[in-house]
Amino acid sequence: MPGQTARIMTFKPRTPLPATAFTLPAEYYTSADVFRKEQDRFFHRMWMCVGRLEDLPSTGSYLTCDVAGASLVVLRATDDGQVRAFHNVCRHRGTRLCAEATGRLAGGIRCPYHAWTYDFDGALIGAPHMDGSPGFRREDFPLGRVRAATWEGFVFVSLAGEGPTLVEHLADVATRFAAWDMRTLVRAHRVTYDLTANWKLVVQNYNECLHCPTLHPALNGLSHYLSGENEPLHPTWMGGRMDLSDGVQTMSMDGRSPLAPLPSLPDDERRRVYYYSVFPNFLVAPHPDFVLVHTLWPSAPDRTRVVCDWLVRPEARDLGVDLDGITGFWDLTNRQDWRVCELAQAGIASAGYRPGPYSSREDLLYAFDRFVVATLED
Amino acid sequence: MPGQTARIMTFKPRTPLPATAFTLPAEYYTSADVFRKEQDRFFHRMWMCVGRLEDLPSTGSYLTCDVAGASLVVLRATDDGQVRAFHNVCRHRGTRLCAEATGRLAGGIRCPYHAWTYDFDGALIGAPHMDGSPGFRREDFPLGRVRAATWEGFVFVSLAGEGPTLVEHLADVATRFAAWDMRTLVRAHRVTYDLTANWKLVVQNYNECLHCPTLHPALNGLSHYLSGENEPLHPTWMGGRMDLSDGVQTMSMDGRSPLAPLPSLPDDERRRVYYYSVFPNFLVAPHPDFVLVHTLWPSAPDRTRVVCDWLVRPEARDLGVDLDGITGFWDLTNRQDWRVCELAQAGIASAGYRPGPYSSREDLLYAFDRFVVATLED
Amino acid sequence: MPGQTARIMTFKPRTPLPATAFTLPAEYYTSADVFRKEQDRFFHRMWMCVGRLEDLPSTGSYLTCDVAGASLVVLRATDDGQVRAFHNVCRHRGTRLCAEATGRLAGGIRCPYHAWTYDFDGALIGAPHMDGSPGFRREDFPLGRVRAATWEGFVFVSLAGEGPTLVEHLADVATRFAAWDMRTLVRAHRVTYDLTANWKLVVQNYNECLHCPTLHPALNGLSHYLSGENEPLHPTWMGGRMDLSDGVQTMSMDGRSPLAPLPSLPDDERRRVYYYSVFPNFLVAPHPDFVLVHTLWPSAPDRTRVVCDWLVRPEARDLGVDLDGITGFWDLTNRQDWRVCELAQAGIASAGYRPGPYSSREDLLYAFDRFVVATLED
Repeated sequence: MPGQTARIMTFKPRTPLPATAFTLPAEYYTSADVFRKEQDRFFHRMWMCVGRLEDLPSTGSYLTCDVAGASLVVLRATDDGQVRAFHNVCRHRGTRLCAEATGRLAGGIRCPYHAWTYDFDGALIGAPHMDGSPGFRREDFPLGRVRAATWEGFVFVSLAGEGPTLVEHLADVATRFAAWDMRTLVRAHRVTYDLTANWKLVVQNYNECLHCPTLHPALNGLSHYLSGENEPLHPTWMGGRMDLSDGVQTMSMDGRSPLAPLPSLPDDERRRVYYYSVFPNFLVAPHPDFVLVHTLWPSAPDRTRVVCDWLVRPEARDLGVDLDGITGFWDLTNRQDWRVCELAQAGIASAGYRPGPYSSREDLLYAFDRFVVATLED
Repeated sequence: MPGQTARIMTFKPRTPLPATAFTLPAEYYTSADVFRKEQDRFFHRMWMCVGRLEDLPSTGSYLTCDVAGASLVVLRATDDGQVRAFHNVCRHRGTRLCAEATGRLAGGIRCPYHAWTYDFDGALIGAPHMDGSPGFRREDFPLGRVRAATWEGFVFVSLAGEGPTLVEHLADVATRFAAWDMRTLVRAHRVTYDLTANWKLVVQNYNECLHCPTLHPALNGLSHYLSGENEPLHPTWMGGRMDLSDGVQTMSMDGRSPLAPLPSLPDDERRRVYYYSVFPNFLVAPHPDFVLVHTLWPSAPDRTRVVCDWLVRPEARDLGVDLDGITGFWDLTNRQDWRVCELAQAGIASAGYRPGPYSSREDLLYAFDRFVVATLED
Repeated sequence: MPGQTARIMTFKPRTPLPATAFTLPAEYYTSADVFRKEQDRFFHRMWMCVGRLEDLPSTGSYLTCDVAGASLVVLRATDDGQVRAFHNVCRHRGTRLCAEATGRLAGGIRCPYHAWTYDFDGALIGAPHMDGSPGFRREDFPLGRVRAATWEGFVFVSLAGEGPTLVEHLADVATRFAAWDMRTLVRAHRVTYDLTANWKLVVQNYNECLHCPTLHPALNGLSHYLSGENEPLHPTWMGGRMDLSDGVQTMSMDGRSPLAPLPSLPDDERRRVYYYSVFPNFLVAPHPDFVLVHTLWPSAPDRTRVVCDWLVRPEARDLGVDLDGITGFWDLTNRQDWRVCELAQAGIASAGYRPGPYSSREDLLYAFDRFVVATLED
């Protein structure tokens, strides 16, 4: 643990940005063609966080989600907790199998239209009246399988048939926050936001605090925007840390926390908050006493749903600890951020927009833009 | 009459479907291009049912409708009940002439903008201040005429300038249900449904009952899904019959009917319900004691309005017979059907959809699909 | 003043329309491509009326508007009342600077995101943390300037970088209504209407009264539709006058006015109402005792917002004169007009529409159509 902590602290120094470090042209935020390509290159190919294991409490529990135009059903398939994901589409006549956001299946997935039934491996185990069809074999019509994996209690899926494993995709992030023991945390609060803004504006907003003194005076009082440091962009993630000001326990309305620090956290980590983005949709912010997670769900160039979860130790939830100061603080901050994301979308979509220059404190954003361009040109 | 009944019973045996009998690719349900082509090949060229003669009770009565992007006015033009249809567009500056769904015109069709006036033959009989226009002749600007015809009290229109007559289009259906004397029936109830589903999914849902045990347990108790038989697809229609279970009088909440069987119906027809589709928008279901009619009004690949009418003997309506058991049953069944149609639309639009195999009890659907493909390729 | 009045009266005689004077094809009212081209040729290139100087009461007062896809901020920049307009887009990351419809800025325009700040000349005077950026110079990033000018208290902007001045664009209209002294008038009432109709249908409706006996019987009683006369179309404007009937004081519910005639108006102008359109969005109707102004804001081929202002002498507003008879009359007439504009849009968008012949009393409309075609082909 101390070794790991040391590694977290070896932030590399900022390198100056080139004089050509400008924001992206407007079409990256407004074009339907760019959006379609992003759906393929980012949301279809990469690992997407779709929920928590606690959303799948028992065998047969499922959640549904839409990833890059694909409706999926993600379920706890076995008593030992294996998670599987399938296209939420019957192989008979294409009917959506599970219509609810969450639920529990008893023994199989049964289509509501003609009762084709699949087991939790996706195998077709019932197909009424198909016996007379020449050449029909049940084994030819399993549910479409989608890769699923879990990490620290988070459930991820990837529509790509092959490619990096989830751990390979998470890269350094996979081990960096081991001390938080996020697997043991539970959701204490969730807020869902619908933004009229491109998903990349949310990522960009998340990865710089240059806007904090202007937009978040309360936040800036708890954690100064020039504190901490970023890491260079990596192929699948970027992030940085900020330091809590003296006397501040956590990010909350008054800087005080009703929660104890997470039990295995080293002392120096009790003064820091991390903000890491794992592309394309997973934003994780480990605090000393809880973890804040945003997942992003773009539906159009200018439409993004953001789901924000507050994860805490189960005993905090079970004891009914008053978390309003924590949830209220980040809900307020979220809304301040979404408002400027929407103003940025509106301005970039306006005929008067021209790419503008990044400052050196926006180095991650420039790196992210380059990554986006490279990925779309790939 | 007995002879006709015998002909109804000569259903041909099912022929096995080929091993390649799969559902259509997704674009047939999602593509704007396919939809535009369908609007032309099906809804513009074929006969569309737009209402009942009782909607046009006296000379000058009209109804308006939108067919394949054309707003039409359909009116009772003469005292002897002739029905005519025109483009609902003034020849002066294009103003919509009749804005209401139904109404009654006194003597002519007068444009609300500049008072250009047409008689019930569509001839321009008033055009204020046009006398000074060089070369202007009223006879050059009649309303655009659209073919209209009636059958058994139903009013149909066709935007095609030429082509089969309505009777030729109805083909065998024109005479098959003569014993129901549908001309004499009146509307007792109407429900309009707006579906987020392609119109073909509604047609397909209507023409198989393989889904009935799963989706409609009540219906299946009244009329077993394996009873009855289909006819092979014909160029402009398809259909089949189902038999009422022992002790069941009609399709209603409890299987009982407050209505007498239609008077001229032969005894054996009192045990059957027919489900016939005349392409593209007319679904007629003769019951022993009433007739259920659906008309389909697609407005987008994934949007269809369905208008459902319950037609009964006029004395039943006049006497205030309680029809709740009948209207409630089919309204419930409709809603069950629309829900799976919408789930099918959602699934087919999902990236995971692949065409799937039809069973032999879905033979009409496969034939319909082939007909759709052939018609669009025409 | 008498000389000017004489000039107003020298209306040229109507010239007969050619036999080919037909309305435009449907795509001019329905096509997204035509609409985009119109946005460029009309709304981007020409002068647009965006408000009144009274909307900018003191230094730093601003209004925002959307012109041809560009969000603009228009502000009173100096203590002596100079008006300037800028793209409402930060040069840093494109954020919309002013989110409200109107407001007042204290000393500068400050971006809500990262506090980039511009003075009222648009110069960038604050850019936190940009000092370390290689080659960054504030003078390279002023706000995008847009031409702004005022006339008779109206504020106009033009997105065209160069071209005619506002006075050149207003042409004869710039001086024709000097006797009304519109600069001194104030807004007594405003109604905003959202129409499902193309903006050109509003212009066309405004410039003929052939529809008045049919659509506006009350108006026709106050001012006969065959009274008055039009002028030939000029490159940037068209218009005409109508005469008040005997005993009528102004256009109001009962033809009476609670207002005195405007003080410097010659006697003969007290019997007339003018209806002038300055392309593309400014419709001004000087009455003997008030001025009615419509501005047009198209957002789609079939969507137009119309803002209608009633301008009166300030003493009338200050004394609380009851203007209901005047505002009610024109609000009623507006709604009658918008309804037929919407019916025209619906009819023209219908498949049955064919261009139709104009009468000689629609000569301005035909001229306007030719002007539209020529401008789009330019």
